[in-house]
Amino acid sequence: MVKRLTTRAADYSEWYNDLILLSGLAEYSAVKGSMVIKPYGYAIWEKIQSELDRRFKESGHQNAYFPLFIPKSFFSKEASHVEGFAKECAVVTHYRLKLSDDGKEIVVDPTAKLEEELIVRPTSETIIWNSYKNWIQSYRDLPLLINQWANVVRWEMRTRLFLRTSEFLWQEGHTAHATEKEAVDEARLILDLYAEFAENILAIPVLKGYKTANERFAGALDTYCIEALMQDGKALQAGTSHFLGQNFAKAFDVKFLSREGTQEYVWATSWGVSTRLIGGLIMTHSDDNGLILPPSVAPKKVVIVPIFKNDEEKQQVENHADKIMQDLKAHGISFIYDDDDSKKPGWKFAEHELKGVPLRIAIGPKDVLTNSMEIARRDTFEKALFPADNPALVVNELLNSMQSNIYQKALDMRNKNTHEADDYTEFKRILDNEGGFIWANWDGTEESEMKIKEETKATIRLIPLEAMKVTGKCIYSGRPAKMKVLFAKAY
Amino acid sequence: MVKRLTTRAADYSEWYNDLILLSGLAEYSAVKGSMVIKPYGYAIWEKIQSELDRRFKESGHQNAYFPLFIPKSFFSKEASHVEGFAKECAVVTHYRLKLSDDGKEIVVDPTAKLEEELIVRPTSETIIWNSYKNWIQSYRDLPLLINQWANVVRWEMRTRLFLRTSEFLWQEGHTAHATEKEAVDEARLILDLYAEFAENILAIPVLKGYKTANERFAGALDTYCIEALMQDGKALQAGTSHFLGQNFAKAFDVKFLSREGTQEYVWATSWGVSTRLIGGLIMTHSDDNGLILPPSVAPKKVVIVPIFKNDEEKQQVENHADKIMQDLKAHGISFIYDDDDSKKPGWKFAEHELKGVPLRIAIGPKDVLTNSMEIARRDTFEKALFPADNPALVVNELLNSMQSNIYQKALDMRNKNTHEADDYTEFKRILDNEGGFIWANWDGTEESEMKIKEETKATIRLIPLEAMKVTGKCIYSGRPAKMKVLFAKAY
Repeated sequence: MVKRLTTRAADYSEWYNDLILLSGLAEYSAVKGSMVIKPYGYAIWEKIQSELDRRFKESGHQNAYFPLFIPKSFFSKEASHVEGFAKECAVVTHYRLKLSDDGKEIVVDPTAKLEEELIVRPTSETIIWNSYKNWIQSYRDLPLLINQWANVVRWEMRTRLFLRTSEFLWQEGHTAHATEKEAVDEARLILDLYAEFAENILAIPVLKGYKTANERFAGALDTYCIEALMQDGKALQAGTSHFLGQNFAKAFDVKFLSREGTQEYVWATSWGVSTRLIGGLIMTHSDDNGLILPPSVAPKKVVIVPIFKNDEEKQQVENHADKIMQDLKAHGISFIYDDDDSKKPGWKFAEHELKGVPLRIAIGPKDVLTNSMEIARRDTFEKALFPADNPALVVNELLNSMQSNIYQKALDMRNKNTHEADDYTEFKRILDNEGGFIWANWDGTEESEMKIKEETKATIRLIPLEAMKVTGKCIYSGRPAKMKVLFAKAY
Repeated sequence: MVKRLTTRAADYSEWYNDLILLSGLAEYSAVKGSMVIKPYGYAIWEKIQSELDRRFKESGHQNAYFPLFIPKSFFSKEASHVEGFAKECAVVTHYRLKLSDDGKEIVVDPTAKLEEELIVRPTSETIIWNSYKNWIQSYRDLPLLINQWANVVRWEMRTRLFLRTSEFLWQEGHTAHATEKEAVDEARLILDLYAEFAENILAIPVLKGYKTANERFAGALDTYCIEALMQDGKALQAGTSHFLGQNFAKAFDVKFLSREGTQEYVWATSWGVSTRLIGGLIMTHSDDNGLILPPSVAPKKVVIVPIFKNDEEKQQVENHADKIMQDLKAHGISFIYDDDDSKKPGWKFAEHELKGVPLRIAIGPKDVLTNSMEIARRDTFEKALFPADNPALVVNELLNSMQSNIYQKALDMRNKNTHEADDYTEFKRILDNEGGFIWANWDGTEESEMKIKEETKATIRLIPLEAMKVTGKCIYSGRPAKMKVLFAKAY
């Protein structure tokens, strides 16, 4: 660790950026708006992928792969979708380069201009529903439950690593159903799946709800979402699941023969989470010493650091470490053995803290004599001596305890930063001071929603799934409140 | 199976295309040159990915992710690379669409023109070595062993499902080393890894060798390859591993501080296999009834078809099937239970044959009485009755036997179709009649190589790793032969 990490208090945004760069998760690339996900960051993404993929498959979904490029005309087919997605896109106009006439550089070959421009997918509803038209004839072909792991591009001028980059990685589910109810149930099932995953695997507590018309996905009738609260009091939308009604079926003319023998339009959902989750992971748990990773997604769960003064001690310490490692290996616990002799133990401790390795086992000559091991937890910095008889057993207990503790800490933080505002003055006071989530009464109009957003930058993060009983007035308009909703400034 | 499969004898190329469409592996998309990989095809790709990924990780490689877009200027940095790759590319020139002035369609916004065009990666050496410049300072940072799973685009006018599409999925390894020897060793290690994977997992026998200068990857000093022979006597390049020397290090100025304290350019390799392997899999093993898949990559290993005449029989057969399925499940053997009552057993048999499910278990009332099961093998069509006491045990034995049998059949086919030609007349006669691999003497000149290619369409598929002793003359020029090489017409 050459450069010291900025503290959260000094500059949260710089802390976030520094932490990603210093811990080796990712970096900016030579291509404006694009990032390089480095091996350490990608290993976390692989853990996320494997946990989600298993859940998708267990609930009957299959993976497939659709083209990167979408003909421009496809976007015009669904009216509200084009509004939302056909704007900041990467547009492919040519298919060939050539050497310039002076032979000095390569240039776009003007004779290789595409008849119709291709858009690099910002999301794949259109290209997928264009295929579904051929796949769906009868109710026997439904439901169609498909997911895709892919890269997508949404051009961004102001980017932030993991949270907002022009290209990002994600999964996008696209399902087709015979009835409205089945489609809504699917969208809700995925919402629950995302929430369970966020809480149990990422240790990020989330609130479930649905979006206002204004915050919906372009083309959806309902957008369900999970929202998390970051340490700086800003909200992060961590996943969305959309009930698309028959919009895409109508746009791409996808009908099916029902059990009753009639031709009906198909009902649809789509849903996705992205590498943005890694940004949420960092901002929920980490501290001024570096990353704190829930053990479930930590690429390596343990680092073992041998400590010795001479060759004799070295030999003894290594033998002891070896026994411990064999036991960890036998129990499938991933670890690093850091015996780099060009670095001091103190340097190593700081480095692995920065990288958020959940547990550190330090082994010195004393531990050899007493058959023990000193384990330090990354989340609490607690250090304790344990007998080295059953290392894997001890390690697994600590990892489990750490997974719950990290979640509990995040939940406490969120609870502490969840407020209720009775009027607009109070609302603004909270936003300006503590930040966080704010429950408040809303009259249900887009007008109030937009005014609040303009004046405070806070948006309605979600409407709760089960409407709370509301009495009183809208904090903005003073008109009778229709519902109580969750506000926050958001990433 | 509505449409009957064209036979291989009638039209090999149509058989191939029909088979992919009818078995539901993939289809053409609305975007010229791009394909949709359907769930059944993608499930095979996932098996391939997981087998390769495990091998990469076990040999010390890590995954990462680099940008989809590459600045145009990057291609000019490595002289021979630009020749090979900067031609048939998808070029992004704009980053925004807008509504046309008449409000009727969406058009490219001319004000959103990129200063420098971006190329959709056809391969990632340039963008990756641009990052490696920052990652490598000292010999301590080496070797750097990185792999990426990604989509790439190489514009194609004439496409063929899996074998040649404008967009395809692949993995690309990019490694950096302190010495020439280490880099060559890495390229060879990956060659061996690819060969072992092709033979043991895909059951495709391959020959290992290296390419002539003319057939090398653009920017490589040596291209190692594995070559397989398809049933129609044409060769398929199934994987390549390149020793890149210091070309990319020089192009992107990547130097490191050696152990001896000097500044040296880094040595490089790159290597890849793609969804093309699925094409190879189909063309190596399948027959006129449909796909034949090696059990290692078959998405489902067994299909169980219950056969009954009335409700009473149905109940008994289902109970019996259930016992068998529980045992298969307990042993981790994937299966389909096809109890669709709208289809006759004969229809189902044909359908699962078409899809290449390795084993079919038919269960009728007689099997209930005798506690047995009838198993049919997809590769040999052999049917036999087995006791149903230990279904998983029987199934696993048959699957293993099938995996070796499929490989052996492919090896026999290749051996039968591998020839040796002593002169050009013989060479042309073999090409015009049997096709297949032809070993022949070559004088080592590009001139003879190109003439043979022009006149016969056969190319040098590989030069063997261990030079064979050569006497005699080049089949083309009549000059003294330098080496014996492997020719074939190729995909």
